[in-house]
Amino acid sequence: MHIQQKLDAIIIQHHSMLCVGLDPVIEKLPERFRAIDEPLFEFNKHIIDATADYVCAFKSNSAFYEGFGASGIQQLKKTFDYIRSEYPQIVTILDAKRGDIGNTNRGYVQYAFEYLQADSITLQPYFGGESLLPFLEYENKGCIVMCKNSNPDSKEFQDLKVDGNELYKIIAQNFTTRWNMRKNVMLVVGATYPQELKAVREIVGDMTLLVPGVGAQGGSLKQVLEYGMNSSGKGLIISSSRDILYASSDNNSFNKHARLKAKKLVDLMN
Amino acid sequence: MHIQQKLDAIIIQHHSMLCVGLDPVIEKLPERFRAIDEPLFEFNKHIIDATADYVCAFKSNSAFYEGFGASGIQQLKKTFDYIRSEYPQIVTILDAKRGDIGNTNRGYVQYAFEYLQADSITLQPYFGGESLLPFLEYENKGCIVMCKNSNPDSKEFQDLKVDGNELYKIIAQNFTTRWNMRKNVMLVVGATYPQELKAVREIVGDMTLLVPGVGAQGGSLKQVLEYGMNSSGKGLIISSSRDILYASSDNNSFNKHARLKAKKLVDLMN
Repeated sequence: MHIQQKLDAIIIQHHSMLCVGLDPVIEKLPERFRAIDEPLFEFNKHIIDATADYVCAFKSNSAFYEGFGASGIQQLKKTFDYIRSEYPQIVTILDAKRGDIGNTNRGYVQYAFEYLQADSITLQPYFGGESLLPFLEYENKGCIVMCKNSNPDSKEFQDLKVDGNELYKIIAQNFTTRWNMRKNVMLVVGATYPQELKAVREIVGDMTLLVPGVGAQGGSLKQVLEYGMNSSGKGLIISSSRDILYASSDNNSFNKHARLKAKKLVDLMN
Repeated sequence: MHIQQKLDAIIIQHHSMLCVGLDPVIEKLPERFRAIDEPLFEFNKHIIDATADYVCAFKSNSAFYEGFGASGIQQLKKTFDYIRSEYPQIVTILDAKRGDIGNTNRGYVQYAFEYLQADSITLQPYFGGESLLPFLEYENKGCIVMCKNSNPDSKEFQDLKVDGNELYKIIAQNFTTRWNMRKNVMLVVGATYPQELKAVREIVGDMTLLVPGVGAQGGSLKQVLEYGMNSSGKGLIISSSRDILYASSDNNSFNKHARLKAKKLVDLMN
């Protein structure tokens, strides 16, 4: 199935554009997870089960697993395997921000699309769209390219002006017109930059935008919806991680609190 | 020891600015490696032993290992462990081209500097220098930032002009003046772009440049040396991978051929 079909179907089915970021940090987990084998995977399983019917997507940032080396990667794979087995209709995103020259990217393609069997991966645009062809040629996989990021000083290069247009707008333009031949490109725009989100929406038509930064990073959900939705009232994957994962650190009820927090976000969206 | 001291010492000791890229592809290995456990690591060990006295650095591209998931990461760790144990004076580079927002980068710091104990890592500049602070604060580790890459169409964004200067030059400028407070920044410039290498050398003073793309990708060693060296006749890490790894596919003499190829490159340099 084409990635956009899969995404639109689950957004309608769950009436939700929420994505839960499965980015566990050991020190922040409920105490019962801290001394067990595979704490990241075990914690994720609870969060996945607790929030699945409120999300369109689950996103795991590879950095939170790579820090633990081979064991972390094993837990990341188990996380993707678990979602695919229990909730196959939900879109999975490997948030890895990868990007290398063409041939080398085949290793990352293998990691994301074969080993983890993720539905999509986040990518760096700096080497140009040509370098990303090994990803872009998979029409059933989403290629989510960095455009305007949520960090405080992302303006250093992203907002530099080229013939009057900021670099992030040129990236949005090129990935809309030159590199979206399989209609599987999406872009990342941080919730912390609502005006830039509006500008990107104007450039990309109905393309789906992945928007992190609501909640802990300070982005406003209301503005994200107002400026980010496309002409069919969809076109967004709104990602939240810390606010949901750590809604409570209670050993027994953390998952119930995560569920309530996810429900609250979805209610606010609708 | 500061990363630059370690690098300068080995360049002088081995009279070499050659870096061997440990980027094994199963299908290209001598037949004896194809059906064993941990083929990537076993092959690397032979290449490392065969070429160690001709190199200043070994560089492993994470992509070639991640494709094999947890087992690949285990072999990558064994590769780094082996170099550190047998040839501790040689600089190790994790070529991972990582880059995320600040907090998330701590996971990659843990992967590169604690789990693999690499001496340096390659990084993406697109989020700005502020996002890379978790790496930059390690003065004994090299932070090797993408500047002008070797792929055919790297010009798409890297050569866009901002107030008359190409983006890659602005990146070179900012990582020289704003973000090199611990003197641990290096930049990547592809050997396939000799004029750009010359321009970057003029911007960055004596900073070390990592130059891939000599050999299989078509870059000229002569031009790299002519345009890339710094005022003390060093300042380069010249990386070659395929030409050395696959100098021969003979089961018994591949390593001897790799050694000869490395020696030839070093002789050409001197």
